[in-house]
Amino acid sequence: MDKRISFSSDYTKGARPRILERMTETNFEQIDGYGTDEYCKSAADKIKKACGTPDADVFFLVGGTQTNQTIIDMLIQPYEGIVAASTGHIAAHEAGAIEHAGHKVITLPCHGEEKDTEKYGSDIGKIAAADLKKLLEDFYGDANHEHMVFPGAVYISHPTEYGTLYTKKELENISQICKEYKIPLFLDGARLGYGLMSKRTDVSLKDIASLVDVFYIGGTKVGALFGEAVVFTKGVTTKHPIPVIKQHGALLAKGWLLGLQFDTLFTDDLYFELGRNAIETAELLKDGLKKKGYEIFLDSPTNQQFVIVSNEKLKELDKNVRYGFWEKYDDNHTVIRFATDWATQKADVERLLELL
Amino acid sequence: MDKRISFSSDYTKGARPRILERMTETNFEQIDGYGTDEYCKSAADKIKKACGTPDADVFFLVGGTQTNQTIIDMLIQPYEGIVAASTGHIAAHEAGAIEHAGHKVITLPCHGEEKDTEKYGSDIGKIAAADLKKLLEDFYGDANHEHMVFPGAVYISHPTEYGTLYTKKELENISQICKEYKIPLFLDGARLGYGLMSKRTDVSLKDIASLVDVFYIGGTKVGALFGEAVVFTKGVTTKHPIPVIKQHGALLAKGWLLGLQFDTLFTDDLYFELGRNAIETAELLKDGLKKKGYEIFLDSPTNQQFVIVSNEKLKELDKNVRYGFWEKYDDNHTVIRFATDWATQKADVERLLELL
Amino acid sequence: MDKRISFSSDYTKGARPRILERMTETNFEQIDGYGTDEYCKSAADKIKKACGTPDADVFFLVGGTQTNQTIIDMLIQPYEGIVAASTGHIAAHEAGAIEHAGHKVITLPCHGEEKDTEKYGSDIGKIAAADLKKLLEDFYGDANHEHMVFPGAVYISHPTEYGTLYTKKELENISQICKEYKIPLFLDGARLGYGLMSKRTDVSLKDIASLVDVFYIGGTKVGALFGEAVVFTKGVTTKHPIPVIKQHGALLAKGWLLGLQFDTLFTDDLYFELGRNAIETAELLKDGLKKKGYEIFLDSPTNQQFVIVSNEKLKELDKNVRYGFWEKYDDNHTVIRFATDWATQKADVERLLELL
Amino acid sequence: MDKRISFSSDYTKGARPRILERMTETNFEQIDGYGTDEYCKSAADKIKKACGTPDADVFFLVGGTQTNQTIIDMLIQPYEGIVAASTGHIAAHEAGAIEHAGHKVITLPCHGEEKDTEKYGSDIGKIAAADLKKLLEDFYGDANHEHMVFPGAVYISHPTEYGTLYTKKELENISQICKEYKIPLFLDGARLGYGLMSKRTDVSLKDIASLVDVFYIGGTKVGALFGEAVVFTKGVTTKHPIPVIKQHGALLAKGWLLGLQFDTLFTDDLYFELGRNAIETAELLKDGLKKKGYEIFLDSPTNQQFVIVSNEKLKELDKNVRYGFWEKYDDNHTVIRFATDWATQKADVERLLELL
Repeated sequence: MDKRISFSSDYTKGARPRILERMTETNFEQIDGYGTDEYCKSAADKIKKACGTPDADVFFLVGGTQTNQTIIDMLIQPYEGIVAASTGHIAAHEAGAIEHAGHKVITLPCHGEEKDTEKYGSDIGKIAAADLKKLLEDFYGDANHEHMVFPGAVYISHPTEYGTLYTKKELENISQICKEYKIPLFLDGARLGYGLMSKRTDVSLKDIASLVDVFYIGGTKVGALFGEAVVFTKGVTTKHPIPVIKQHGALLAKGWLLGLQFDTLFTDDLYFELGRNAIETAELLKDGLKKKGYEIFLDSPTNQQFVIVSNEKLKELDKNVRYGFWEKYDDNHTVIRFATDWATQKADVERLLELL
Repeated sequence: MDKRISFSSDYTKGARPRILERMTETNFEQIDGYGTDEYCKSAADKIKKACGTPDADVFFLVGGTQTNQTIIDMLIQPYEGIVAASTGHIAAHEAGAIEHAGHKVITLPCHGEEKDTEKYGSDIGKIAAADLKKLLEDFYGDANHEHMVFPGAVYISHPTEYGTLYTKKELENISQICKEYKIPLFLDGARLGYGLMSKRTDVSLKDIASLVDVFYIGGTKVGALFGEAVVFTKGVTTKHPIPVIKQHGALLAKGWLLGLQFDTLFTDDLYFELGRNAIETAELLKDGLKKKGYEIFLDSPTNQQFVIVSNEKLKELDKNVRYGFWEKYDDNHTVIRFATDWATQKADVERLLELL
Repeated sequence: MDKRISFSSDYTKGARPRILERMTETNFEQIDGYGTDEYCKSAADKIKKACGTPDADVFFLVGGTQTNQTIIDMLIQPYEGIVAASTGHIAAHEAGAIEHAGHKVITLPCHGEEKDTEKYGSDIGKIAAADLKKLLEDFYGDANHEHMVFPGAVYISHPTEYGTLYTKKELENISQICKEYKIPLFLDGARLGYGLMSKRTDVSLKDIASLVDVFYIGGTKVGALFGEAVVFTKGVTTKHPIPVIKQHGALLAKGWLLGLQFDTLFTDDLYFELGRNAIETAELLKDGLKKKGYEIFLDSPTNQQFVIVSNEKLKELDKNVRYGFWEKYDDNHTVIRFATDWATQKADVERLLELL
Repeated sequence: MDKRISFSSDYTKGARPRILERMTETNFEQIDGYGTDEYCKSAADKIKKACGTPDADVFFLVGGTQTNQTIIDMLIQPYEGIVAASTGHIAAHEAGAIEHAGHKVITLPCHGEEKDTEKYGSDIGKIAAADLKKLLEDFYGDANHEHMVFPGAVYISHPTEYGTLYTKKELENISQICKEYKIPLFLDGARLGYGLMSKRTDVSLKDIASLVDVFYIGGTKVGALFGEAVVFTKGVTTKHPIPVIKQHGALLAKGWLLGLQFDTLFTDDLYFELGRNAIETAELLKDGLKKKGYEIFLDSPTNQQFVIVSNEKLKELDKNVRYGFWEKYDDNHTVIRFATDWATQKADVERLLELL
């Protein structure tokens, strides 16, 4: 077993212990399969209440790529593509799962509109409403573009792959454009808990639920063993969602395992508490890094922190710390990522700072 | 919570407690993702040893349909189809997941060759080597069939969807034909543990591993929370299996959860012990049913037992027992399924027999 | 060049000469591409008039498999399958093009309901309304079949692959059931002209247009160089059909070549005249075969005639005649197919009969 | 009929008259279907000879998008993508046909390496060997990119969508890199004839055939009614190409129509003669445009000429000339395209110049 302190990613630990306890408690209950059970129902009810969307449909899937692929197949026609930032997870890091399902990912530049980075953090990884508007205007304008791929829906991630966040105003603008062009807006919330609890966000869960057509609340990276809770905020439009999910190999036999986990996460605001822990330890880390004179690569308001480190220092660090390699900065420096999570201890951060 | 005694299926309970214990023990270990961890390696090693196939490649996926879809996409060319019994799970009960991936399921009659049901149980649900041979001879014979779907691989399930089992001789014959036509043989072992421990089988795990090109050892139905261990017995032929798995949404982020489970199941022969429990309770049940004069619908040598019950009796049973509806028998009778599993208690069977 | 007399199929000749003449006349006209031209418009208008469906949408595609694949993708959802006779072209002879597009072909027995073969010919190759009703009742009945493939549309061919024809009553019954279950009915008319002009049919073009949701009028086999005219009788429901067609590689750049051909075929009832020629020569051939004592394999009322011939005779025939091999009948006999077409001369038939 | 002079595209006319004559001559010959005939064989032989590739496999398909989709499906694995310029036809103008078949189009910047535009024309629309090398080095370098799409083949068009051409050196460099990384190189030659006959190219048909793994010789835009001749220069690697073609709806029943056309085009160097006509008329046009003071948008060495025209002038032109709208240049100017072709008359160009 690797004994180094680990900040390599936010999915290297199991689950909030209460989740394993409840799995153990219910282990022999004999529960119906495929998400038709009471735990899934209870979890869905709690989520709908937290979102303020009583008419929503909630499904529980296992992982992120699977969820993105299945939702997008539900949202758009086979001849339509999905608009995303060029750095979006579906564009860059899902091994072509969206194209495998037949859809082009139509990319936009990866910069948002809000440039007050002091207040909101970096805008890398986001799309700008203006860019989206231009794309849709050009496509659906006067000329006939029937030989091109129709932009059928819009994908955003929040936090983005760079840990950055949309402002409420940005989300409202994007949502407004989607409404205008009657195309659905889908928000990938694989790390949603960390976005919601950022100290530099004005976006709440209810805001998201009211501004997008579908989003998911990430469990895998925020305290669950696995699982993503998909919320179709106004109800699902696919006539038969279950066979679509099944056809994508995404229907878990023991679906209650997902229900149980989200029921736990949405009891007594646990999901938010877990999010807060990652934020507080990340802030502690960032302050420490700054004090020590490290150069921050991009100003992330959530649990992922990107730092520029000399290769020399890195070699030393390797002995005691696990981190994420992000990219080469120059011949002598590297950008690395430290990720805190729902279970990071302040003591871990302090030890890391000492090692730095 | 439903308080009725349940024999409705073999995936209504959680997992062998040792599995939850180990998940709890390792919960904060900080383990690498995507199946690159030591638990997956250890589980794969134990499985390769149990199979007698040191050159095998082992992958851990989450559920059955996902596994069938992903393996078949690895095995055959886009223009090829897969041969299966008309009752095969991929042909009938996966919402078209195989066709969604572009492949035709080419069906054969669902009866095996061994008719000594006294000795081996019913042959329903199997394919016969002779039928397979005829299909391949006709297709690859003199005439050109380039406008038809090429039979690119053969799928069998063991136990079948009816709980029935191939004999060693049958498997050898099918394997021989596949070799002759150079098409791979794939065995779906979603309930493999129950097949291996049947009192009426001459087929061992090593037999299977030596006769097929790829198979999977079902965990979801045999003591795991979820998970299927895929064994490419001679090594995987796909150059890059990970992106294929990822593209199918089948790459679990916390892959060690699968490794941990199979490592547990293949320690101290636990997998076989769990299989044996289901068989012993199923045999107890069958004997009891026979003694009580119930008519057995088909003679299953594994954990699923199919009985013909009068509709009147059924109405009474509904109050205290959960079972699986199989099909209408006649206007007054119904075929139902009782499934025992890795955790079924003898006391449960006795209580069920009393209720019957 | 093979100098033997040919009855091997109905797509071995070019086109009605008037078609080549018009292509030559218009060769330098400079016409807009992709079917947006006046010839396509004119052809569509004539077809809508002949069908009695002023609200229809008409598209011109190049070949049969392409047309079946594209229409089916337009008609049904990705998770739905299409119902067809087990002998249907899409089920058996299109190299898996439908499954390649993600859809299961759900097969029914290949026998119709009308058994008065004296009056209507054989019923092989058709589906029976009763079988269709049972399938849909079973599927959409009480039980939940979300793990199975939804029957999303029905495919029939007329004439069938065996040259047989539905009666008007049969078509009405099938149409009625489709309406009841709200699933579209699609008729493959690759050989429609030969069906419409059969001496033993009570089905007209207008009947078909009023009973099905979409069908196509085959050109490739009935006097055109290539081309199939797709008629969505009540208008197309796909919001953007052109990108769907383009995405299937089915949008011909010089679309006017299709328009020109169908404009010619639907001027002065040429399409029907061409159909009649094949029927008259086929009847002449059948009468001659019967007189000579040949055993007719199945009683086809259209241009394909199936005969049982001794292998000895066949060897002799091979020298002077080209025919289609259909299937082995017994060790000493073979079923062969003679196909007449829009250009078959009575003299050819007479010569063939002499050779027999 | 639109009486305006037309330079709107190179697929608005039928075919070189000799082609229609031969179709008429052979109209009743009774020829075998699906490309198995003597005309296809003869055409393939002539093409292989012209290419200097005796071991090549040649297939004839109907249109460009269909050809790109089918070839790419043959070339790469389902989990692989294809590299192309961001302006490549497959990336931008095929309605997502490549993604529909499951593959990501991985885009590179659209500028080549040779910047001597005086000598070779503009480099827009091409990819640069250096960009390709960087992409492949990054991907196949040290780090593991199994969560990204594997670059499985490279697509280039020659002429490009902007009428520009690779130099021999550029092709050699790209070819060399592909060989180094063992990924096939595919050249889209929809307008190949116009590229080969450019006055500013040093690339011959044999050069192409020796440098790429597969390419196609465009017929639709260069003198044929329709048709693209696909040349796998070292033989096709797909074990069963015909079912793949069929499955894509791309197997023309009367395949000899394609064979006849390419046999004609490759008799007495007709294909090159047709290419030359377009080049000569395009040069005449460009010279005239320059003399009249028009600003050339990009310097194309082939049959497509791009000019910047004031919107005022355009309004006037609309009455007498058909041209292609390319893009808005500024508020008062527009970029338009004039395309000459195999049949453009010098008199047409002179009349156009007068109107300008």
